[in-house]
Amino acid sequence: MASVTYELIKTCKQTGARLGRVHTPHGSFETPVFMPVGTLATVKTMSPEELKEIGADIILSNTYHLWLRPGEDIVKEAGGLHKFMNWDGSILTDSGGFQVFSLSDLRDIEEEGVHFRNHISGEKLFLSPEKAMQIQNDLGPDIMMAFDECPPYPAEHKYMKDSVERTSRWAERCLNGHKRPNDQGLFGIVQGGEYEDLRKQSAKDLTSLDFPGYAIGGLSVGEPKDVMNRVLEFTTPLLPTQKPRYLMGVGSPDSLIDGAIRGVDMFDCVLPTRIARNGTCMTSQGRLVVRNAKFARDFSPLDPNCECHTCRNYSRAYIRHLIKTDETFGLRLTTYHNLYFLVNLMKQVREAIKADRLGDFREAFFEQYGFNKPNAKNF
Amino acid sequence: MASVTYELIKTCKQTGARLGRVHTPHGSFETPVFMPVGTLATVKTMSPEELKEIGADIILSNTYHLWLRPGEDIVKEAGGLHKFMNWDGSILTDSGGFQVFSLSDLRDIEEEGVHFRNHISGEKLFLSPEKAMQIQNDLGPDIMMAFDECPPYPAEHKYMKDSVERTSRWAERCLNGHKRPNDQGLFGIVQGGEYEDLRKQSAKDLTSLDFPGYAIGGLSVGEPKDVMNRVLEFTTPLLPTQKPRYLMGVGSPDSLIDGAIRGVDMFDCVLPTRIARNGTCMTSQGRLVVRNAKFARDFSPLDPNCECHTCRNYSRAYIRHLIKTDETFGLRLTTYHNLYFLVNLMKQVREAIKADRLGDFREAFFEQYGFNKPNAKNF
Repeated sequence: MASVTYELIKTCKQTGARLGRVHTPHGSFETPVFMPVGTLATVKTMSPEELKEIGADIILSNTYHLWLRPGEDIVKEAGGLHKFMNWDGSILTDSGGFQVFSLSDLRDIEEEGVHFRNHISGEKLFLSPEKAMQIQNDLGPDIMMAFDECPPYPAEHKYMKDSVERTSRWAERCLNGHKRPNDQGLFGIVQGGEYEDLRKQSAKDLTSLDFPGYAIGGLSVGEPKDVMNRVLEFTTPLLPTQKPRYLMGVGSPDSLIDGAIRGVDMFDCVLPTRIARNGTCMTSQGRLVVRNAKFARDFSPLDPNCECHTCRNYSRAYIRHLIKTDETFGLRLTTYHNLYFLVNLMKQVREAIKADRLGDFREAFFEQYGFNKPNAKNF
Repeated sequence: MASVTYELIKTCKQTGARLGRVHTPHGSFETPVFMPVGTLATVKTMSPEELKEIGADIILSNTYHLWLRPGEDIVKEAGGLHKFMNWDGSILTDSGGFQVFSLSDLRDIEEEGVHFRNHISGEKLFLSPEKAMQIQNDLGPDIMMAFDECPPYPAEHKYMKDSVERTSRWAERCLNGHKRPNDQGLFGIVQGGEYEDLRKQSAKDLTSLDFPGYAIGGLSVGEPKDVMNRVLEFTTPLLPTQKPRYLMGVGSPDSLIDGAIRGVDMFDCVLPTRIARNGTCMTSQGRLVVRNAKFARDFSPLDPNCECHTCRNYSRAYIRHLIKTDETFGLRLTTYHNLYFLVNLMKQVREAIKADRLGDFREAFFEQYGFNKPNAKNF
């Protein structure tokens, strides 16, 4: 019995979006799902109880960051990530690959792995498929990710082809290096940038290895939204119907809906929590920068249509005051709201799929949020 | 009917400490009590629900800080401090006097009031008894404090005598300036430093004005602990038995117990919350600096004898990791624990008073905490 399985419940007749359920050793969750990011074994400013209250069933944590601090050995000794951080829901960890390529400017990619420098101490480090598996086996998430190369956007076809082939070889080494397949499900990552032939090649290589789930990597790295949508359109059909599909690093409301419509089941992004800490909120009427002076005497909630704990109990004026005075509680309130907004958005998306009307939902949501305006401020 | 009343329940036969109950427009609380400090209309890092869970019935907020940010007019427009910050328990505000004297180095004391500079913007400001009342009437706490002069320690007898007399004249102006006596109780502040004759004079002046409660000011300003204890010994007997007595700015565990033994009913201090944010915890075995490297692999709770949410669910190793990586959630966990520790300590103090054994409790607590050791690290 595989540790992570996917159950397709139904497909939206209007859009083709999938309603499903993923089962992990720490429970099940419905998809499409948004996963809050808890980089260092904590979703910044939030408690596990608050995440549960918001409706999050799965969170993401970062292998690279936990490897450096506190070290995977300490997490293992604590009994694994779930026990260490007091979270009994599902956890997914990335492989560290993305951070190696995005945080470190001194890196040297070899067939064996990547040499690079610790972004905090400058110390020399080496990450390989086997090392990424060992760290994730020690951390103990329900879902772990294969170690891949994340090429920049744009990248030449030749470079991308070499990279895709290396990522496929690394994927096989990941499968061989993974020591706890009964406790943890390992997802493969399809790369290939914007090139359809390379996505095909990558998907073919990866699906032949029969992972319990597949991520679509190398998107949300600076390409225009229509490129992302086009790549999804030709990539998701290449993936097995009976496995979950995870679009990495995507969390703006429009991209979540457009990704679901193109057959994506899982998403994660630091966006809602990061902008919250700068006083920016997602609301049913679009972005709201609660720091702004115009909210100093606005005693209405962040979002009048929201039923979250923040919106039921606190005003824009109070939250603005807290953020202006650097009070942590303000960041708790905005973070809570933004996560609730996205988790609740995905709930609405799932309901729309059930009712075969995700296309209609998209239209109404985009209109109200302002995504249809010519100069819409996207995230 | 006065807005704030005190009920003396019993006196400890072993020590003379008082068990009582204070009634305010937002509920009642048992004394001796420790009041967490929420300077800017938030107890740093905590939610109101957490404060309730900890057992806090009354919190303190600072007039000076709220006057500057967001301004008492905004708080008033929000419906008062309780509604603004979503706290339905009791609130006490200070008068702003202490901050004027401690935060501003350019000040000019006149009979009319104090000219000084805003510690953030440098702007010239003026605070007087009437202004302090207006601000506190607008903020709307259950208990407000008279505007007094807070002389430094040590101060000459002559200076202190002038100051005490001015504070008495200001106290009368405060009573006259207080426009909401049916909604808010105004406490007088007895000054006089370490001089018994001046404490007598101040207490006589203040009690003749018949405030619903009295604070003992000018302590915990740098004097040795035995001076504080001696001053309390000759000051509390000067105050009416049927009114609550509040020792301002005191929050170290030993001083809370020693204050209660000398007849004090209410205490407040930023100490537990401030040291928590630096990774220092109060435990039944004394101070614990959880940042220290020796806790990196310590999977036991902050305090093995504590039943708070932090200690029931999180390890020293996890909290250390969060604090070392600047994660807010670590500060939430230590703040929660420290407040629980002091609120729970006062509960134990009240139980000891009921059982007429506060002296025994003090001895056992001091021994376990390490206060009896010759080089005990006090707070």
